[in-house]
Amino acid sequence: TGVAMMKFKSPPVNSLSLEFLTEFSISLEKLENDRACRGVIITSALPKIFSSGLDITEMCGKSVEHYAEFWRAVQEMWLRLYGSNMVTVAAVNGSSPAGGCLVALSCDYRIMAENPKFSIGLNEAQLGIVAPFWFKDTFVNVVGHRIAERSLQLGSLHPAPEAHKLGLVDELVPEEKLMEKAAAVMAQWLALPDHARQLTKTMMRKAVLDRLVAHREEDIKNFITFVSKESIQKSLRMYMEMLKKKKH
Amino acid sequence: TGVAMMKFKSPPVNSLSLEFLTEFSISLEKLENDRACRGVIITSALPKIFSSGLDITEMCGKSVEHYAEFWRAVQEMWLRLYGSNMVTVAAVNGSSPAGGCLVALSCDYRIMAENPKFSIGLNEAQLGIVAPFWFKDTFVNVVGHRIAERSLQLGSLHPAPEAHKLGLVDELVPEEKLMEKAAAVMAQWLALPDHARQLTKTMMRKAVLDRLVAHREEDIKNFITFVSKESIQKSLRMYMEMLKKKKH
Amino acid sequence: TGVAMMKFKSPPVNSLSLEFLTEFSISLEKLENDRACRGVIITSALPKIFSSGLDITEMCGKSVEHYAEFWRAVQEMWLRLYGSNMVTVAAVNGSSPAGGCLVALSCDYRIMAENPKFSIGLNEAQLGIVAPFWFKDTFVNVVGHRIAERSLQLGSLHPAPEAHKLGLVDELVPEEKLMEKAAAVMAQWLALPDHARQLTKTMMRKAVLDRLVAHREEDIKNFITFVSKESIQKSLRMYMEMLKKKKH
Repeated sequence: TGVAMMKFKSPPVNSLSLEFLTEFSISLEKLENDRACRGVIITSALPKIFSSGLDITEMCGKSVEHYAEFWRAVQEMWLRLYGSNMVTVAAVNGSSPAGGCLVALSCDYRIMAENPKFSIGLNEAQLGIVAPFWFKDTFVNVVGHRIAERSLQLGSLHPAPEAHKLGLVDELVPEEKLMEKAAAVMAQWLALPDHARQLTKTMMRKAVLDRLVAHREEDIKNFITFVSKESIQKSLRMYMEMLKKKKH
Repeated sequence: TGVAMMKFKSPPVNSLSLEFLTEFSISLEKLENDRACRGVIITSALPKIFSSGLDITEMCGKSVEHYAEFWRAVQEMWLRLYGSNMVTVAAVNGSSPAGGCLVALSCDYRIMAENPKFSIGLNEAQLGIVAPFWFKDTFVNVVGHRIAERSLQLGSLHPAPEAHKLGLVDELVPEEKLMEKAAAVMAQWLALPDHARQLTKTMMRKAVLDRLVAHREEDIKNFITFVSKESIQKSLRMYMEMLKKKKH
Repeated sequence: TGVAMMKFKSPPVNSLSLEFLTEFSISLEKLENDRACRGVIITSALPKIFSSGLDITEMCGKSVEHYAEFWRAVQEMWLRLYGSNMVTVAAVNGSSPAGGCLVALSCDYRIMAENPKFSIGLNEAQLGIVAPFWFKDTFVNVVGHRIAERSLQLGSLHPAPEAHKLGLVDELVPEEKLMEKAAAVMAQWLALPDHARQLTKTMMRKAVLDRLVAHREEDIKNFITFVSKESIQKSLRMYMEMLKKKKH
């Protein structure tokens, strides 16, 4: 059918580790180069979670070189996904904070399970960290400046119904109909001629993509400086402790 | 009353041919220079159609010189209408695809007959072509980035109620009340002092107008290159065949 | 609690005179430099009016030097408020036209008394004057381009329910619950770590703030040229006469 399915399966919560991101980017590149593939549906193979976002262990107590490699991998994933020529549909079948939300925001269309226990948002501020400018740009392109300003400052995680109301996701469906709906949406988007659709997509997203490309090394340096601060390291360690306690 | 009425009357579907566009621009220029004229209501004298958009016969099997002349005329019309000092109200009394939608988007206010059979949108992608950046800029200024991104990629034609919900048109009224409502809206806008209103309009639209002015020749070249491609010529011929069959 | 309260009290209508603006900026600077202060709630001590906006007497029949000093004070207030590191909540307990609306728009969150007799908006065009570009930028960041374009051209004053529907204010509450609600919202925003929230706020607002900083002297010159015109002086005098008659 020309449609690939990517199912995140990295227990327990599909954290975006360096390894995960690298594999994700390679998979996207392969599909991009496969002329038989015109679209990809991204979802999770794990229950209740789409992706928990960037893997905090990659940002804690590691070397400067590691931070640089990790951040480059985050950038690479986003550049490939947000700039993909394929039709990209996120079937958000669980919670999707921070980097997980970015993955969904970078797709062409977002369908979410209408379970109010599932939430989505760029909640970095809650952890004492700041979403980089290109997370922000992607967010603003979806929900507009005002909603982004408020949501980013509060580090809000929006329950599915609220996320839908804000335009953060395009549609809510019962969880058991999520994949069926994703396939239907994909078919609708693939009904258009690829060339015109791709040029249109590029026209809409180029300014924001170019901005990271132009400032990529600077953005890596900023990340390293920020994450190397003792205060940030402390925040991240506290957050990890909290997550561990939650599990038990 | 200081209000002019422009009624498109080029059967069968008010296609924006080179001749139509030239006459449209000249009429706008005359009104602009007429100090007695402060506003213009744009509507169609034909039933069921506001304007079907750019005349495809102007883009099919013609010379490079013709393409250049045609595209310059499209640009000229938009520069005059979007940048008009007059109050411009679109009374959309029929369907309004592609270039027809651009005409409506370029006005200060859009009222549409609340007939769900009438639709409006920048559906270029459906024809395998791409709306130029200034169509896109005009659209984004009206509906925001996200709605524009989705609608342009899908080449959506939105039935009147949906167009209203998306903010593509400002108001729906029963068809028989359309002109009355347009006159009332015009009166409301003309109640403001011209000078302050005009400076405010310029402030809102200048960035987007300047962008085309700065890239006008390049945009003409892009159009010629694009429309000269055999694949695009084929798409356009197929589309014209389909339109002809529909009529019989 | 780390929260300051600023109550505008300059009868009869909290006009933003040179003196008022200077005191406002000094107060903001003091709070900004007070590490114990993390947030400020801005409201009015007068009934029915939040602030009537810029004091027209400062713009009428004064010297060029006075116009320059006055306009610099307006800029200074906005630069401090829109760029504040503190959480800023506007508790809009009365009408708030023009510059009063700008004060509210520059805060992080706007709560308004749900009284349809109270209205808010950038109504400069009604007076024959034009809101400067940074008023416009601030407005667009809150309500988006389309709503701003229409509202600014019409010089609309939106009754509280309409202002809420347009996103100009975030929330409506009964007047007697306004301060309680403002305190609750403040507590919600202060629950976030200051540093991450401040950096996020800067990321969202920097482009618009920088634009005035870069064009500050030019903007003052423009104001002087505009306000010195006899036609504008006449408009302002007529408006003041009208206000005086209204009072009697």
